[in-house]
Amino acid sequence: MYGLIGKMRAARGQRDAVMDVLRASTGALPGCLSYIIARDPADADAIWVTEVWTDAESHKASLQLPEVQAAIAKARPFIAGFEFQVETHPVGGFGLADAKTG
Amino acid sequence: MYGLIGKMRAARGQRDAVMDVLRASTGALPGCLSYIIARDPADADAIWVTEVWTDAESHKASLQLPEVQAAIAKARPFIAGFEFQVETHPVGGFGLADAKTG
Repeated sequence: MYGLIGKMRAARGQRDAVMDVLRASTGALPGCLSYIIARDPADADAIWVTEVWTDAESHKASLQLPEVQAAIAKARPFIAGFEFQVETHPVGGFGLADAKTG
Repeated sequence: MYGLIGKMRAARGQRDAVMDVLRASTGALPGCLSYIIARDPADADAIWVTEVWTDAESHKASLQLPEVQAAIAKARPFIAGFEFQVETHPVGGFGLADAKTG
């Protein structure tokens, strides 16, 4: 499995707008096992996104999907930057969805 | 919802041992919506754990469960330290399990 843990910074006061876009565009994408969007309670403009995919290729392919491209275009004006990102290799746990194939 | 993102460091060469304990003790704990264990591919002793709970109280209560206490006792000798931990407030996404009540 392939994972990402990232911290995104919204433009001042635009965190809810960014999160709304992320939530609206998050669904059962092919190969996606988990995609969780969270506020940082100690940092008013920060958003944490944690992702698990079947493999790195599924994640990369998702970025080309029309609905994901549309979400990126919609959110971009409200995003100030990306502050932290780490790749992980998830091995298991609880709460991973079944992957949608194709 | 209440979330945690943490990076744990295993004693040199003991990462698999720690992950085995974490995986064996991870199940449908009350209030747990997601608990994912991952290797850091760039750091041979590092483990990332991302968690989502219905609320902070569920997480706190889980630490008192006999099976969790047993896992902590079993893993402790193989853990060198905790390097990073952030609390989050998850708002949604994909792959959150249904909470087991009680």
